[in-house]
Amino acid sequence: MARWEPNARERLERAALALFTEHGFDATTVAEIADRAGLTKSTFFRHFADKREVLFGGSHGLQDLMVGAVTRAPASAAPIDAVGAALQASAVVLNNREYSRQRQAVVAASEELRERELIKMATLTSAIAEALRRRGVKEPTASLTAEAGIAVFRVAFARWVGSANRKELGELMRESLDQLRVAISA
Amino acid sequence: MARWEPNARERLERAALALFTEHGFDATTVAEIADRAGLTKSTFFRHFADKREVLFGGSHGLQDLMVGAVTRAPASAAPIDAVGAALQASAVVLNNREYSRQRQAVVAASEELRERELIKMATLTSAIAEALRRRGVKEPTASLTAEAGIAVFRVAFARWVGSANRKELGELMRESLDQLRVAISA
Repeated sequence: MARWEPNARERLERAALALFTEHGFDATTVAEIADRAGLTKSTFFRHFADKREVLFGGSHGLQDLMVGAVTRAPASAAPIDAVGAALQASAVVLNNREYSRQRQAVVAASEELRERELIKMATLTSAIAEALRRRGVKEPTASLTAEAGIAVFRVAFARWVGSANRKELGELMRESLDQLRVAISA
Repeated sequence: MARWEPNARERLERAALALFTEHGFDATTVAEIADRAGLTKSTFFRHFADKREVLFGGSHGLQDLMVGAVTRAPASAAPIDAVGAALQASAVVLNNREYSRQRQAVVAASEELRERELIKMATLTSAIAEALRRRGVKEPTASLTAEAGIAVFRVAFARWVGSANRKELGELMRESLDQLRVAISA
């Protein structure tokens, strides 16, 4: 019988991020992560499919949250406002700037991790477009609005983790969407 | 001495796409591609770093072309118009719908290829943002405009290779950009 380990998931995530930051992603083994967290390798694999996934544990939750926000937006809301609600919902859970900054540095340093991150963002974009279509939004508007939302997410997130910026993520999301509107207006 | 092989690159690209379509990407070897093209494995590796790259041979050229179009846009052009010129330039070279359609089906069927495609698109987005900054466009407008341009590219390209669509790629790019403007207007 597996023992119940309190907060095993979080402890593994924190241990992994610390080790990846110290020694790099490639040089760190799952055994070392488990060891640093005071857990076993088999506990690691009960929580994560592989070494990469320990950095992406939140991505399912984030997608469910954002899709939920699109779905629950008032029927009268324009597609871009439903997506705006999803961006604000994401900003509520992505509230640990220091964790996000460290994680971003680790991801940026590894092509393998960058690829995984891009796949997650592409999957998120498709899920949001699908949620918009379920609201009755036609193509290509659904895909374009989802793509625009993720573009705003990406740029606002990069500004947020960038050292020079003191603003909150939700504020940067709103600001970036306004700036996108201005930038592409004819 | 290596023999000079006329059109080796194109012959390898066409042979690879045919084999990937027939047997799948994973089941096809470099030796089989070279054989189908009437060339040797060493000729393959003179042209492409690995099996994946044979599907991405055009991506450097595409990036140079699009960055060039941004750079050469009149100084008075708004950032989004410089990016619009880049989209039109891309549509001139991406003119083989049947090849693009087959290639898209092969890429979509393989996670490994989807990841490589996403990396190429992310690199293209960064290169366009950089070209905008060299024109004096400030952040975050440069990144947001580049992201919007690639969003339009992605959606227009998907519509173009989609069987139902008879319009030309350049026309779909213009149309999609207009639809994005409408979709995100407040």
